[in-house]
Amino acid sequence: MTKQFLVDQIKAKHSYLCVGLDTDIEKLPAHLPKNKEGVIAFNKAIIDATAPFCVSYKMNTAFYESQGIAGWEAMEATLAHIPSTHFTIADAKRGDIGNTSAQYAKTFFEVLPFDAITVAPYMGKDSIDPFLAYTNKFTIVLGLTSNSGSANFEQQKLANGQFLYESVLEQVSSWSSAEQLMFVVGATKAEDLASIRKIIPNHFLLVPGVGAQGGSLEEVTKYGKNNDIGLLVNASRAIIFASQQENFAEEAAQQAKQYADEMKSFLV
Amino acid sequence: MTKQFLVDQIKAKHSYLCVGLDTDIEKLPAHLPKNKEGVIAFNKAIIDATAPFCVSYKMNTAFYESQGIAGWEAMEATLAHIPSTHFTIADAKRGDIGNTSAQYAKTFFEVLPFDAITVAPYMGKDSIDPFLAYTNKFTIVLGLTSNSGSANFEQQKLANGQFLYESVLEQVSSWSSAEQLMFVVGATKAEDLASIRKIIPNHFLLVPGVGAQGGSLEEVTKYGKNNDIGLLVNASRAIIFASQQENFAEEAAQQAKQYADEMKSFLV
Repeated sequence: MTKQFLVDQIKAKHSYLCVGLDTDIEKLPAHLPKNKEGVIAFNKAIIDATAPFCVSYKMNTAFYESQGIAGWEAMEATLAHIPSTHFTIADAKRGDIGNTSAQYAKTFFEVLPFDAITVAPYMGKDSIDPFLAYTNKFTIVLGLTSNSGSANFEQQKLANGQFLYESVLEQVSSWSSAEQLMFVVGATKAEDLASIRKIIPNHFLLVPGVGAQGGSLEEVTKYGKNNDIGLLVNASRAIIFASQQENFAEEAAQQAKQYADEMKSFLV
Repeated sequence: MTKQFLVDQIKAKHSYLCVGLDTDIEKLPAHLPKNKEGVIAFNKAIIDATAPFCVSYKMNTAFYESQGIAGWEAMEATLAHIPSTHFTIADAKRGDIGNTSAQYAKTFFEVLPFDAITVAPYMGKDSIDPFLAYTNKFTIVLGLTSNSGSANFEQQKLANGQFLYESVLEQVSSWSSAEQLMFVVGATKAEDLASIRKIIPNHFLLVPGVGAQGGSLEEVTKYGKNNDIGLLVNASRAIIFASQQENFAEEAAQQAKQYADEMKSFLV
């Protein structure tokens, strides 16, 4: 998927919602079996119900890997069920030396044909380049995350006066264009998005932490939006586990629609 | 496995060699099939041949994930074949927000019962704590890696005068003890190990980059060794792909023995 296609989808739907399929098998509705078939049935129902209100789906690989081989089968089946109109993200946070990152890129761009993968920046340029070598895919690099631990390293001041995460945004954005590079920027301090936009005005931001983690959608949009909209706001648990009853998919759709309606009110 | 058991193994064998089973399917000997069965047969032969000369095996998950479900089956079968005398490491470089890291910890400590996993520190304390919660397992946190990209962030100077990697070693080492925490420290600049040992005198170091990546085993040992030896030096390609002929396992054993003999010369 090209950036322009994604922008067109967002503008047509007035939604920049990404639904996080972080399908914790322990939280499945009681009527579904706690196995591969249950996860796939759950994900398919969530996708069918929420697709009109979102433009993207993100699968955090941890929730699938923790089910072993059955989890990988569920990840494959779920990815295959997502409509080609929706931007698919493997939230894998990988990163290793060059020849090894190339194996991860193959995993999440070829074996599992996602549109994008999240990548951790700690090991630097040659750990990210193998993902960028797929010019028809997107690499989404961790910038500022929304967890408390972001204070330990990401928000440390460097000798040059920048925060580490600002150095990540500045350096990594010089390695590729907004046509194939995005950044993860958490929503817990939306006002940070204004200074972030000075460093990376053109790149899409994948924003977790709205909803369950406490960020405000209005603030995120105010400080983070650019001419392309340039935002993918992710909500996971708040949507997919809105209900644990048999009507879970309808409830998920209701939640997704609420996000989308709120987004629309900021865009039109 | 406890730290003491590992130390005893090292001292009994006079070897602190870790063999990296980074089994790139494209590099299998020509007589083996390029599929799951080929990978498993290769790994089992390498393990049987090299076990006398090493104390640990490290599997980089990227080389298995890139084969999809078959790769996970190969990882399972390989792990099951490693003798319980040998310390097993999932070189996965994971890291995510707390509830998600907990899923990764479950994956590599329970579903695949490794003794240890490598973890990326960028997201901070709450991304590492779920691994440390397994007090009978080891968490191996990336400190200073041996790739060129380590210059981009790991070796940036902080406002407090430390390099970022030094802050990682100092902060993370305060979160747990050497009984369940280790660090990845690359071998390309062995003299850095002297200053690293001032920050973390007691922790085991997992040292890649000796051999194919160019570090010197003698220098690494000189600057990195502590009273427990405290080193696991990894070699992957230099051992497992020493030959692509039918005698690949014998050649791998020869290479592993050379490392072990050199190690012995530093220890006795």
